[in-house]
Amino acid sequence: MALRALFFDVFGTLVDWRSGVAREAERILKPLGFALDWLALADAWRGEYQGAMEEVRAGRIGFCKLDVLHRRNLDRVLPRFGVGALAEETARDLNLAWHRLDAWPDVRSGLVRLKQSFMIAPVSNGNISLMVDLARRNALPWDAILGAETAGDYKPKPRVYLSACEAFDLPPGDAMMVAAHTSDLLAAAKCGLRTGHVARPNERGPGKGEAQPAASVDVAASSLEDLAIKVRV
Amino acid sequence: MALRALFFDVFGTLVDWRSGVAREAERILKPLGFALDWLALADAWRGEYQGAMEEVRAGRIGFCKLDVLHRRNLDRVLPRFGVGALAEETARDLNLAWHRLDAWPDVRSGLVRLKQSFMIAPVSNGNISLMVDLARRNALPWDAILGAETAGDYKPKPRVYLSACEAFDLPPGDAMMVAAHTSDLLAAAKCGLRTGHVARPNERGPGKGEAQPAASVDVAASSLEDLAIKVRV
Repeated sequence: MALRALFFDVFGTLVDWRSGVAREAERILKPLGFALDWLALADAWRGEYQGAMEEVRAGRIGFCKLDVLHRRNLDRVLPRFGVGALAEETARDLNLAWHRLDAWPDVRSGLVRLKQSFMIAPVSNGNISLMVDLARRNALPWDAILGAETAGDYKPKPRVYLSACEAFDLPPGDAMMVAAHTSDLLAAAKCGLRTGHVARPNERGPGKGEAQPAASVDVAASSLEDLAIKVRV
Repeated sequence: MALRALFFDVFGTLVDWRSGVAREAERILKPLGFALDWLALADAWRGEYQGAMEEVRAGRIGFCKLDVLHRRNLDRVLPRFGVGALAEETARDLNLAWHRLDAWPDVRSGLVRLKQSFMIAPVSNGNISLMVDLARRNALPWDAILGAETAGDYKPKPRVYLSACEAFDLPPGDAMMVAAHTSDLLAAAKCGLRTGHVARPNERGPGKGEAQPAASVDVAASSLEDLAIKVRV
């Protein structure tokens, strides 16, 4: 088996969602007179993430883009912070905070290096337009945008990992899922993919992130640059 | 309505399938002792294209990748040229001729320029891996790979054009289909997309291609560079 493709988780693994969402919320809401704990808002918004996707995964609602779920979650979370009745245009703009996140410093250079030897694609729960906006903002050189919207379901459902392999004409063993979250990697491994962990020890705040994998993986790296060395690029 | 995205047909519009398929067939079959009219083989193989896709469009067979249809068509066409009983590995390699086509000379520079102002994606009947291989070979800077495989049907079915617009969160009027084939553009226009014709007068051999659109389009261009000027980049 030759490693031919690398699939990447995005939120947390490649981009810093927490400080980015907090920054965007402050940029949009502060001029409207709101003063609140912006990082706590980001955490609360992200806190609704898995539950919303579980509605789709369990088949209780049909597949819809993550942008749609993010918006429902936003409308649920804002009142807890004393923010109500935003103009529709403002709420829509705030919802796009997730399209305006910055990559961790090693990501751009790491992907450029890895692309020389492997096909690379995000396999994220984020929708295609969200991935495109992040790629443009951070100059991420994807070969294709794969993931939940292409698969019509959300990770960690097997279909998401397997449809990515199928899109690239690869048996799962020729692909590696790369993520900062052990749960994502374990789900990919069950489908036959190889696994690469990237440490993001401060993803959810100082010291709140996976400094190392919580289970056995094929490669454990401290950055995408380190991953490139360890997969022998 | 602001133009936000450009969607591109690929075979004939961006890449020269005829001379590329002929070159690949000669490279693979000539060393095996076959001597035949390589361009005629390319034409015959391409000649089976619409009929094979029509099986899917009409619902007589389920959706399968263009690579699969190409292979069926190859197996049908080879005996007409006196080629039978190829080793499976050889036939598979020959089938990937479509992954190894060269772009017309204006394509790379035109796409780089257009990407500065618009989201760009192929909306081709070719599958994702085929598009990725063509992009890598010709350095095509796509934002995403859209088209038949993402839509689960083949152009000119409306779903293919509309799913591309949906992936980019755009109403059809904010997107333009770009193609060297008037029929493709008319189908896109019926879905509400704008239309850009690129002349490829020698696509199917000298003088055998659309030197101009056969119906009214929004923009008619002689190259992607010319298109960039005409959509005011």
